[in-house]
Amino acid sequence: MNKMELVAGIDIGGTKTALGLIDKEGNIYTTTHFSTEDFPKVEDYVKELGNQIEVLFEPFKQDYSLIGIGIGAPNGNFYHGTIEHAPNLAWKGIIPLADMVSKRLNTKVLLTNDAKAAAIGELIFGGAKGMKNFIEVTIGTGLGSGFIVNGQLMYGHYGLAGELGHVIVIRDGRLCTCGRKGCLEAYVSKRGMIQTYQELFNSAVLDLQSSTINPAMIADLANNGDQIAFQTFDETGKILGQTLADIVCITEPEVIFIFGGIALAGDLLLNPIRHYMELNLHHIYKGKVRIIPSALPDNTAAILGAAALICNQI
Amino acid sequence: MNKMELVAGIDIGGTKTALGLIDKEGNIYTTTHFSTEDFPKVEDYVKELGNQIEVLFEPFKQDYSLIGIGIGAPNGNFYHGTIEHAPNLAWKGIIPLADMVSKRLNTKVLLTNDAKAAAIGELIFGGAKGMKNFIEVTIGTGLGSGFIVNGQLMYGHYGLAGELGHVIVIRDGRLCTCGRKGCLEAYVSKRGMIQTYQELFNSAVLDLQSSTINPAMIADLANNGDQIAFQTFDETGKILGQTLADIVCITEPEVIFIFGGIALAGDLLLNPIRHYMELNLHHIYKGKVRIIPSALPDNTAAILGAAALICNQI
Repeated sequence: MNKMELVAGIDIGGTKTALGLIDKEGNIYTTTHFSTEDFPKVEDYVKELGNQIEVLFEPFKQDYSLIGIGIGAPNGNFYHGTIEHAPNLAWKGIIPLADMVSKRLNTKVLLTNDAKAAAIGELIFGGAKGMKNFIEVTIGTGLGSGFIVNGQLMYGHYGLAGELGHVIVIRDGRLCTCGRKGCLEAYVSKRGMIQTYQELFNSAVLDLQSSTINPAMIADLANNGDQIAFQTFDETGKILGQTLADIVCITEPEVIFIFGGIALAGDLLLNPIRHYMELNLHHIYKGKVRIIPSALPDNTAAILGAAALICNQI
Repeated sequence: MNKMELVAGIDIGGTKTALGLIDKEGNIYTTTHFSTEDFPKVEDYVKELGNQIEVLFEPFKQDYSLIGIGIGAPNGNFYHGTIEHAPNLAWKGIIPLADMVSKRLNTKVLLTNDAKAAAIGELIFGGAKGMKNFIEVTIGTGLGSGFIVNGQLMYGHYGLAGELGHVIVIRDGRLCTCGRKGCLEAYVSKRGMIQTYQELFNSAVLDLQSSTINPAMIADLANNGDQIAFQTFDETGKILGQTLADIVCITEPEVIFIFGGIALAGDLLLNPIRHYMELNLHHIYKGKVRIIPSALPDNTAAILGAAALICNQI
């Protein structure tokens, strides 16, 4: 009897690693997680990851075969299966993680960055099934993106395409973590929104202790009528909407999906993005590009996205 | 005996139409041209175009077969084979030109805009043979572009991708022909360069009659030590270089080709583009993206590009 097939999806974050087993229809069979930080040596991490997957797969091994492992990781390079100079991970330099995991578990391993994994996840299991041209914008600590062009993920010549967060939107603007000034990510991200809120607040009331604020709190405040919080979403949406109007000139997507924690604010964020994108679009694109939230389930999206890397190739 | 195969390439401009016959290696067998303006009715134009192609093909018809026709046209839409609302043509609305020409000559016809045709031409016959990810930037009356991604031309969802000229580079900047303000094309184009030269000149000397100036003259002046002309190229290259640094974040090409009359100024234009792009690049891209002139022959590039549409599919 032919065994049924399962794929492992692994989402590597700076703090924790989440993993799960899914089938080709996107049904999740089991998930678990462990601390990434506990393994400052990548060799130890790979050993632990291997053990975790084996434990996860144990109850299924009689009826199923594990046909591949997809990994979403910060600074992941699909072409080389490497994690390259990830600032939020303890492993420095270029880490050939896909090869290491493949050797440990003797199966096919594909790796890309988290935003590209989310785009593939949207294509295979989310709201973009059957679409040929769309953009996935992931807003979290930073701003990432994955572009599907002619039905394929756009990786670029060295695998470095899709860094929408580092398009410069205001020349000589805010300092970005990349060392340059005025990047989109310095405005549209968790950090960027907090800074916008603080700047707007400080211009109204001095001596604010607002270091404990976060985007979810700003959303609550806005929904309760706080004008500065509301303005923070408007400013954030304006900068992203203006930028997307330019990006539409380049790749002309059918849909732009917004993914990540901040996107949970819903129309509070999406409406200003839609308004300012439409306002700034060249007339040939007006009314043609939809901006909608990701249809991936928030808690398992990263695992589904990583697993989709494998499902996309079979 | 099997006949050898020829392809017709047609470049439709507002003033004239150039056409030629080539083989699959890009050898040009014969060319001709006629006035576009003489045919304000598209039905008459298609009749004349058909006659011209038949006359051109007559000497070859014993030994060759005509396997297809590629057309490069302003506002050409590849998906529908249509010319849509082209401001510089007499035919208003949406013109199903590919279908009309196909019926007239009973052969396969593909149509796209001139910049996309140049990109395909670069891929098949020019400097981009074998490349999977590059950008063709065409600078003339306006600024067009064609993006090759994963080895294919990026058309977008409605065939409207690649309008690099309408990315907004200076908010509330110069009025563009599209009605918006600050588009790249308003600065980097024949018109844009003349305006930059005039603005720089007027700020130095008042009452200049400079309406007869053109980019070739500005290049001559710069090469003869004229500081304002030199500064015009520097400003033009700066705005394009800064923009390309952002575009690299999106598509991460191996090479950016610069095509069109203004590109004939050579390093006078290319050096500032290279300098300012490199200066503004995110560190992960530094030193990785080359900016070089198109390798297509200047006088037959448009015909080769149009014909390449067919050659790319066989």
